[in-house]
Amino acid sequence: MRETTLRDVADLAGVSPRTVSNVVNGYAKVTDSTRAKVEAAIAELGYRPNVLARNLATGRSGQIVVVVPYLDTPYFAELLQAIIPAARKLGYNVLIDQTDGDRQHEGELIGRGSRRHLFDGMIISPLGLAQEDLTARDPSLPLVVLGERVSDGTFDHVGIDDVAASTEAVAHLIAIGRRRIAAIGDQPYPTGEAAQLRTRGFRAAHEAAGLPVDESLIIGTARFNRIDGATAMTALLDRADPPDAVFCYSDLVASGAIHTVLGRGLRVPEDIAVIGYDDIEDGRYSQPTISTISPDKKAIAQLAVDRLVLRIAASEPIPGVELRAPHELVPRQSTLGY
Amino acid sequence: MRETTLRDVADLAGVSPRTVSNVVNGYAKVTDSTRAKVEAAIAELGYRPNVLARNLATGRSGQIVVVVPYLDTPYFAELLQAIIPAARKLGYNVLIDQTDGDRQHEGELIGRGSRRHLFDGMIISPLGLAQEDLTARDPSLPLVVLGERVSDGTFDHVGIDDVAASTEAVAHLIAIGRRRIAAIGDQPYPTGEAAQLRTRGFRAAHEAAGLPVDESLIIGTARFNRIDGATAMTALLDRADPPDAVFCYSDLVASGAIHTVLGRGLRVPEDIAVIGYDDIEDGRYSQPTISTISPDKKAIAQLAVDRLVLRIAASEPIPGVELRAPHELVPRQSTLGY
Repeated sequence: MRETTLRDVADLAGVSPRTVSNVVNGYAKVTDSTRAKVEAAIAELGYRPNVLARNLATGRSGQIVVVVPYLDTPYFAELLQAIIPAARKLGYNVLIDQTDGDRQHEGELIGRGSRRHLFDGMIISPLGLAQEDLTARDPSLPLVVLGERVSDGTFDHVGIDDVAASTEAVAHLIAIGRRRIAAIGDQPYPTGEAAQLRTRGFRAAHEAAGLPVDESLIIGTARFNRIDGATAMTALLDRADPPDAVFCYSDLVASGAIHTVLGRGLRVPEDIAVIGYDDIEDGRYSQPTISTISPDKKAIAQLAVDRLVLRIAASEPIPGVELRAPHELVPRQSTLGY
Repeated sequence: MRETTLRDVADLAGVSPRTVSNVVNGYAKVTDSTRAKVEAAIAELGYRPNVLARNLATGRSGQIVVVVPYLDTPYFAELLQAIIPAARKLGYNVLIDQTDGDRQHEGELIGRGSRRHLFDGMIISPLGLAQEDLTARDPSLPLVVLGERVSDGTFDHVGIDDVAASTEAVAHLIAIGRRRIAAIGDQPYPTGEAAQLRTRGFRAAHEAAGLPVDESLIIGTARFNRIDGATAMTALLDRADPPDAVFCYSDLVASGAIHTVLGRGLRVPEDIAVIGYDDIEDGRYSQPTISTISPDKKAIAQLAVDRLVLRIAASEPIPGVELRAPHELVPRQSTLGY
């Protein structure tokens, strides 16, 4: 028995194949009664839309994929929550993949494979990928990269100015009178590109204030999690000469560090001032509330989606651009005390 | 010019079509050198795997979709973080969709559409869906439902015993001597099925202890967020007869409620004891740490994935089952004080 076609459905429903296609693709411009007729015909004939044929015909699947390292990291969750409505407004459904920051998984997603043909384009926040992986990727995939990368001219990159933001964070600690400032979150290349930019800001703020950097106060961590912050803070407090302030490379790290400080019976910020990074909701409700660098997540999301849709629509390759979203320093109780 | 086929790739690479298929599908059993040969041939011929043909041939896409209402709710983020590795171990890639709890969006996902043919099955945590939407869904979609639903026999349902868990939470507040206990998070049907089960537990614990329920202490909220908890707690503290304990329907609600209590200069738990629900990481690091009901998220994930894979593999429809994951009461500082 031959496969049921879109035309069979159209004939039975008494509508044009184009209308069936609109229903199948979920386009909004179909009336409810027409949609009902088409859906009844689809059900009666047991029609299964040929996804690939549809994609080849329209050149679009109407889907984009957003790839993040960790879904349980609030920064990424909040970013996704901003990307999804921005994409929907432009008619794209968003599906999400997460990689655990694994270089091989990330590489497969941007490499020559089959799965990505399900998508018109990709927004990826890579963690394990080295710059050369991005350069070696499948050039036919419309791609926008988030985070701390540099465009090689074939993809777009959206991020905040991490060095400037980190410099502001540490300058704030210096401005409130702190002189022995630790940094928690340094990481080696390639995973640690974000971390390295933050360490550069840490150094720049010291230099601008004429303060020396105590290298032993720069603490590396495996990830940017609460447990990393708690563990690093324990090591800092066990020193003979603990710091009087800590720049944490994420709000989660700051949350873990504060947990350790308070658990020792010390006060934040009186004994140790703490500033984080990301402005996740948790930091606005915690005790004390957490001073932070707030990246404009809505701006990041809008810039990324707008650029990806432009890239998908372009008939010729368009040059990659660097797009900067704004950020601001948000001082709260963990540095100001009020 | 005719479309490049899988056989063309196999011929050029000097391997079998099956091997090309294995490479295209990302199966692990291909050696690196064979994979390299096949990928070179794919690149040279500009071959685009025919996703639908592959799916029709194997009957599988190797993908499942997990649908949650909100990605920025830590409970769902932590649950996804448990589902993804469980699915990968069984050879499935996971993609994620989020619905904002919108009934129409959720209904489209489980209804007769095209997009779901990209997936072998779906795990959904519905919020807006009414029970009748689940019954009216496309029966050909292998489906596992999470949360507070009841299987109609055609899909599987995985959850904890919410009434028992809520009863334990409120019994704990009674056991530490509290008598004026408020509840924050009640919601109307259909969105509020989770909330209604928790309210039932709230009542059951009072009844078991021979305590009357003060109906005016049951506070409804739009969602289970920090802002909802903070706002409801403000209303409770503004009363002439504030409660001495609060059962919050999520840890986020509890976090918001605690923020309000401490902001008024009151103490947790001395003035007001607070217990939450979900055991998100935040509650283990906050000040005070948050007493909670801990659903076994790994068990929920494993039960859901195992059942979905069984359902996908089944050649005949199999009956839907109710699967219960364990939970436990975890008392912390917000009720015990230590």
